[in-house]
Amino acid sequence: MRIVTLLTDFGLRDGFVGVMKGVLLSRAPKIQLVDLSHEVAPGDVRSAAFILMNSERYFPSGTVHVVVVDPGVGSDRAALVARTPRGFYVGPDNGVLSWALRRQRVVEVRRIENTNLFLHPVSQTFHGRDIFAPVAAYLCRAGHVRRVGPPALSWVQIPWPEAVFSEADCWGEIVYVDRFGNALTNLPWDESACAGAQWLEVRSQRKLRFPVCQCYADARHGQPVAVPGSSGFWELALSGGSAAERLGLRPGDKVRLHKGRPRTGNARP
Amino acid sequence: MRIVTLLTDFGLRDGFVGVMKGVLLSRAPKIQLVDLSHEVAPGDVRSAAFILMNSERYFPSGTVHVVVVDPGVGSDRAALVARTPRGFYVGPDNGVLSWALRRQRVVEVRRIENTNLFLHPVSQTFHGRDIFAPVAAYLCRAGHVRRVGPPALSWVQIPWPEAVFSEADCWGEIVYVDRFGNALTNLPWDESACAGAQWLEVRSQRKLRFPVCQCYADARHGQPVAVPGSSGFWELALSGGSAAERLGLRPGDKVRLHKGRPRTGNARP
Amino acid sequence: MRIVTLLTDFGLRDGFVGVMKGVLLSRAPKIQLVDLSHEVAPGDVRSAAFILMNSERYFPSGTVHVVVVDPGVGSDRAALVARTPRGFYVGPDNGVLSWALRRQRVVEVRRIENTNLFLHPVSQTFHGRDIFAPVAAYLCRAGHVRRVGPPALSWVQIPWPEAVFSEADCWGEIVYVDRFGNALTNLPWDESACAGAQWLEVRSQRKLRFPVCQCYADARHGQPVAVPGSSGFWELALSGGSAAERLGLRPGDKVRLHKGRPRTGNARP
Repeated sequence: MRIVTLLTDFGLRDGFVGVMKGVLLSRAPKIQLVDLSHEVAPGDVRSAAFILMNSERYFPSGTVHVVVVDPGVGSDRAALVARTPRGFYVGPDNGVLSWALRRQRVVEVRRIENTNLFLHPVSQTFHGRDIFAPVAAYLCRAGHVRRVGPPALSWVQIPWPEAVFSEADCWGEIVYVDRFGNALTNLPWDESACAGAQWLEVRSQRKLRFPVCQCYADARHGQPVAVPGSSGFWELALSGGSAAERLGLRPGDKVRLHKGRPRTGNARP
Repeated sequence: MRIVTLLTDFGLRDGFVGVMKGVLLSRAPKIQLVDLSHEVAPGDVRSAAFILMNSERYFPSGTVHVVVVDPGVGSDRAALVARTPRGFYVGPDNGVLSWALRRQRVVEVRRIENTNLFLHPVSQTFHGRDIFAPVAAYLCRAGHVRRVGPPALSWVQIPWPEAVFSEADCWGEIVYVDRFGNALTNLPWDESACAGAQWLEVRSQRKLRFPVCQCYADARHGQPVAVPGSSGFWELALSGGSAAERLGLRPGDKVRLHKGRPRTGNARP
Repeated sequence: MRIVTLLTDFGLRDGFVGVMKGVLLSRAPKIQLVDLSHEVAPGDVRSAAFILMNSERYFPSGTVHVVVVDPGVGSDRAALVARTPRGFYVGPDNGVLSWALRRQRVVEVRRIENTNLFLHPVSQTFHGRDIFAPVAAYLCRAGHVRRVGPPALSWVQIPWPEAVFSEADCWGEIVYVDRFGNALTNLPWDESACAGAQWLEVRSQRKLRFPVCQCYADARHGQPVAVPGSSGFWELALSGGSAAERLGLRPGDKVRLHKGRPRTGNARP
């Protein structure tokens, strides 16, 4: 049974997501539907790109990921399907797919142009229903992208903010704030470059220093901590509260992880 | 695999929707469940009627639509099942089904009275669990409505606010505000009567005029526009923001679409 | 098809729930997933325990219930699987499972310690993905708990606030406030001890008396009422509004149900 994931900024109040599922199930009855999120802030392409990047690798290969965060709907922006060994990625050509595709082998990318696949009449405001859902249903049935449209020669990529490493420090930024108010950075914690981390400093409204802990529960209630997060990046958290809210952290705030120099004396074997 | 859609005002916090699904799956294990919305404002029968009307036609025929927006639960209001060529519609007799049934052929309507189908003891406050879910499961298994109860001779209908047309204008009102703050009107844009639309005026706190655009992206950031919406009605939107919030639009506000007279001179071929 | 229910405080915005579902479906493709709630307030173990207690009995036997409300994630708190005739219960050992297990026969409880079942590397912050989802998938495939880990000799139990009965009154407290603002108490309405209830008094900011009604709709708009709730407990409600918000009701507020003495004269046969 093929899985289709949905990631949109439609919210859950108005029935838009249900309608997409109706179209999908009308054309591909034997699929398993999974919601990744529908609470992305309206038009927030970067957050959707980050959620997709952190989620898609946990699904079985062959999964069809449909992303509709699409402030340009109805304009002349293109629409894409990408195929990788892990699955299919469907969405507008605004960069929303690009972070998920960054670290895997992209087998092919096609522009969605075959109007025979669409639901007619095609609206100018709801391509999730009229284009993306029917194309995803086609991918589920066909298992390939051949009839979707011509190969895409280029596509929009959102530059990933790469961390910068020196002997004693790593520099980066906050890229996402989650529902707990934890601030996720672009600093990977499994890089040997980040080994021996002592504290993490953020330059927000003021400079704040977060000691490194291994988990939220290691901190005293109300204490700010930097923890190695589940998506592979350092996270800034406040034990028992929202770090983002109480300390005013926001995406784009610069961070610096201090490793210190390799200690030579006083080592405990 | 039969599809059951759920549309309620239960919210997603308290487990009520999950309980309905448990009852459904206990009695009809092979169904596919789809949420239309559970974030209808408590008791807002009109909004639920509008969501159902705009959603149900995208599902395969035979789908069972269960609607529980039911401020009269436990009172002597009746409960209904309607059957049409498109599917089954289950809910309280308060008009919540009526807009979806308006434009299709209603084959039969029955009152839900066969207590053998219910989950016992029947509570006075959660008919979604004790009556509507078990009856929907019965419909999935049986494929017909015969044992549900006697034919309903009449049922509550919410009057649909019909648009009024003249040679130069169409008059109507805002019927729904979606999560993006777009205000959906009752003015159809595919009627020949509305062809040649030039602008749309709304009488809210003050008079506002919205130029007609084909899609949100055609407008400058922050510009109010009237677009032909995906549900077949003219929508009032604000590019990059919430029209309803910034301009104070609300359901019931009167709108007027100006077509102008058919131009005879100065035509571009 | 085995059912897996999910109950977390992850919210629906960040993709955490979708990731758990990806892991579950990767390892147990033929399951039916049902969300109980993901909107539990962060770390609110008591509310999650209450939702699970009120929901789980409506699912078919053999259902796997996964609860991840886990402020101690990454600490040395244990993780548990319980098996009962109704199904499997998976979660951290912080009491979140205990109210659901109170009134059924617990066949066995095991500590989750078999790291072979986990998703590696195991993070310190997202055991829902790395431990609970893979263990739930194992339970779906195996149908037993043998390889999960050693028997648990004891586990955390949240004391259930028992109601206290006298001839004329029942004393208890508010244990949960739902999305409608109804305040659910621990006073059962099916106990013969509570028969003949006349009114319910709550000691919140001030003393308030709620007359007993059979359903919300029996009350005048804006009237406070005590109704026999769908979970088997007396509920405090405000017809057409939020009792909790308007009257300041909160979990822990003391309540007293007055039955009066059995009437001997003036009886209507």
